Amino acid sequence: MATHTDFMAEALKQAQKSYDEGGLPIGAVMVENGEIIARGYNRRVQDGDPTAHGEMDCLRQAGRRARYDGVTLYTTLSPCMMCAGTIVQFGISHVVIGEAENFHGNEAFLRENGVNVIRLDDPDCIELMSRFIAEKPTLWDEDIAGNDPA
Amino acid sequence: MATHTDFMAEALKQAQKSYDEGGLPIGAVMVENGEIIARGYNRRVQDGDPTAHGEMDCLRQAGRRARYDGVTLYTTLSPCMMCAGTIVQFGISHVVIGEAENFHGNEAFLRENGVNVIRLDDPDCIELMSRFIAEKPTLWDEDIAGNDPA
Repeated sequence: MATHTDFMAEALKQAQKSYDEGGLPIGAVMVENGEIIARGYNRRVQDGDPTAHGEMDCLRQAGRRARYDGVTLYTTLSPCMMCAGTIVQFGISHVVIGEAENFHGNEAFLRENGVNVIRLDDPDCIELMSRFIAEKPTLWDEDIAGNDPA
Repeated sequence: MATHTDFMAEALKQAQKSYDEGGLPIGAVMVENGEIIARGYNRRVQDGDPTAHGEMDCLRQAGRRARYDGVTLYTTLSPCMMCAGTIVQFGISHVVIGEAENFHGNEAFLRENGVNVIRLDDPDCIELMSRFIAEKPTLWDEDIAGNDPA
């Protein structure tokens, strides 16, 4: 039986893939019934798409569906307001967050809106993201339009 | 000098284009310094992309930028939580909404987060969207995952 740590490792692989492509190293996987049904990563640099955060790309890869009850979204970094709003709108019931040290994100907003949130404080997620921010601070600032809510 | 009504008419043209393609008739335009810099419409049906609401597609078409101060986003329908969250995350300062009768959306959330919001209650926007909802209720329900916050 795969654990939260196992699925987060898969999300981190997506983040690493983006890092290796010169993009923002934030990855996500969507899990249903114990299996990964979609993977995604931030594609701002790769596709020139400001809306393609890791969570958004993962939803896009998952394709159309009527409801998201019972779906768990794993993301290496705490969700920004775009991604948190998306999780709430679509009713994604469970979110597992790799870390919130490099970006505080919107855990409180998710909880207030009934989302079950777990944060792992994963050292590998923290390390990759902090390395990236040190290397490309301007690109990171652009990705969140300078706006960390915390 | 173009008015809010003129720009909303352009957003409605985008909505009509999507309707004609069999998609959800919700359109948007982004305006800066009195000129339209991007257009977009809901592409759930056309691209099989659940994240491609009209506002999101418009941001994507506008491409990468560091900041959105001074940008006005015109949307034919009141923003869902995904789109409202996106507006707040990226710091889009002004939003003009065509109507909020067919979907209440998240005007209060936008205002609480400092966004300048104007709602036009445009009868043409109302008519097209209500016609679509009557014709394809299941598709409309899917687009918002059954979740209207009001």
